[in-house]
Amino acid sequence: MRNLNENTVTDAVLQTISAETDHRLREVVTSLVKHLHAFAIEVGLRPDEWMQGIQYLYDAGKMSTPERNEFILTSDILGLSSLIDMIKGRGVGTGTEYSVLGPFFVEDAPEVSVGGDMAGNNPGVEVVLSGRILDEKGKPVGGARIDLWQNQDNGLYDVQETHEGAVPNLRCHQITGADGRYGVRTIRPVSYKVPDDGPAGEILRATGRTAWRPAHYHVWINAKGYRPLVTELFPGDDPHINGDAVFGVRDSLRVDFSESNDEAEAASYGVKFPYQKVDFDFVLVANQAVE
Amino acid sequence: MRNLNENTVTDAVLQTISAETDHRLREVVTSLVKHLHAFAIEVGLRPDEWMQGIQYLYDAGKMSTPERNEFILTSDILGLSSLIDMIKGRGVGTGTEYSVLGPFFVEDAPEVSVGGDMAGNNPGVEVVLSGRILDEKGKPVGGARIDLWQNQDNGLYDVQETHEGAVPNLRCHQITGADGRYGVRTIRPVSYKVPDDGPAGEILRATGRTAWRPAHYHVWINAKGYRPLVTELFPGDDPHINGDAVFGVRDSLRVDFSESNDEAEAASYGVKFPYQKVDFDFVLVANQAVE
Repeated sequence: MRNLNENTVTDAVLQTISAETDHRLREVVTSLVKHLHAFAIEVGLRPDEWMQGIQYLYDAGKMSTPERNEFILTSDILGLSSLIDMIKGRGVGTGTEYSVLGPFFVEDAPEVSVGGDMAGNNPGVEVVLSGRILDEKGKPVGGARIDLWQNQDNGLYDVQETHEGAVPNLRCHQITGADGRYGVRTIRPVSYKVPDDGPAGEILRATGRTAWRPAHYHVWINAKGYRPLVTELFPGDDPHINGDAVFGVRDSLRVDFSESNDEAEAASYGVKFPYQKVDFDFVLVANQAVE
Repeated sequence: MRNLNENTVTDAVLQTISAETDHRLREVVTSLVKHLHAFAIEVGLRPDEWMQGIQYLYDAGKMSTPERNEFILTSDILGLSSLIDMIKGRGVGTGTEYSVLGPFFVEDAPEVSVGGDMAGNNPGVEVVLSGRILDEKGKPVGGARIDLWQNQDNGLYDVQETHEGAVPNLRCHQITGADGRYGVRTIRPVSYKVPDDGPAGEILRATGRTAWRPAHYHVWINAKGYRPLVTELFPGDDPHINGDAVFGVRDSLRVDFSESNDEAEAASYGVKFPYQKVDFDFVLVANQAVE
């Protein structure tokens, strides 16, 4: 081992990785060490600042639970989670863009037939959310499973409520027919703040950033032969649309909530006038189109 | 907010930092976000790999205590802690090199007069550890406080023992006279493994790395008008001298443990033949020499 200094220590660390190490692990650890060291050198990180970083991780660890993971939140507010979505979406071409899954997905949400009701007695602005699931050539995809979930008018997801019988609420799945159509009666989701009572919230405050997320529907589509699609739809006119704390918004995922006067649709979905209408077609990418 | 993709999301995150943010905080967060994103893009980090990283931090958080901080250990084995020492040492010129403080320093270690005994009844190879504390011109520094601490012959530090009266053992401080001399009767420290029963240990195993640290004395010197010096001294012939798990070894901190036949010294320190002798002069850097 040659003498260690700022210029040699990074290579010295990398040289300790044995030749038998899994190729991918070696690749990831090598890049991580290089960037970690380059960061410290670039800013001339002081011992007290390093200790603040250690304390951040320690505090985040102590407050984290499976339901409230402060490390995921940190990744979210630093834009890393969205970047992972973008990397996952490399090569999807004309397919619908990905966005964050979030922590509130639940397996086995009830099935609601296409054209059915996901809202029940929830207060809120009534919405018909519908459209088609297509392939890249515009052909409908039948037999696709679409999961939809959203928050309540009070800003909370059902799983954040503590009273009995709170779950499931405002979540369902549908299976498309040959026409590829999906559609539910629901309510308009509302904007809300990410939890800002921990270390991640301190970063937001210290850097003058917002904790708000614009309202959104969560969507997860699975169909045989296609890449799974995890994404979100955002009301284009949400007051926080340009300031999402977790960088989930994409231009292509901003949708119009237009007032509708379609009497036949209103009767079919059982909504009262005035109601809002969101029409969005999702485009799936065939498995083989992506290496 | 322009449309977000792999090429724009990093700037989008940085643009959310408000103009009123503390200058240094902005500098550190900016560099951190840039390198975090560059790392993910460079390796094309997959969602399952990102989740493994989140799980690592979660597990490290759950197992950490003030006495056993897995985040500090992670920083240590990735060479970051040593890099922070090197950055701290920028501009120290001909001063003694820095090395890691480690987690086992204790304030208020007993005072032992120069030439006194720090070993008591500890089993082990007897050593006289002595030398001078000098300034960069070679002038002795009087009134300097030197703290010395080390592990026992069983590989543990006193504070790792659970039995009553275990602390203090093998630690002391001395105040130098006008000649700048320090000196104690002690034992030879032994090499040991960093705790490898947590996530950091998994990294070491998965990459075929060692958990061993070569034996060392810990040293912390404080003197008015000089930069504090935190460092370590390593037996040059330790079997792990070229494979320190935490990258603390520097060529200039490798010392000889030579067999001594100095009868006057043996009598003065109360050691029996054969004993080993370590002679090392520390060089302090004046405060004003470093900006």
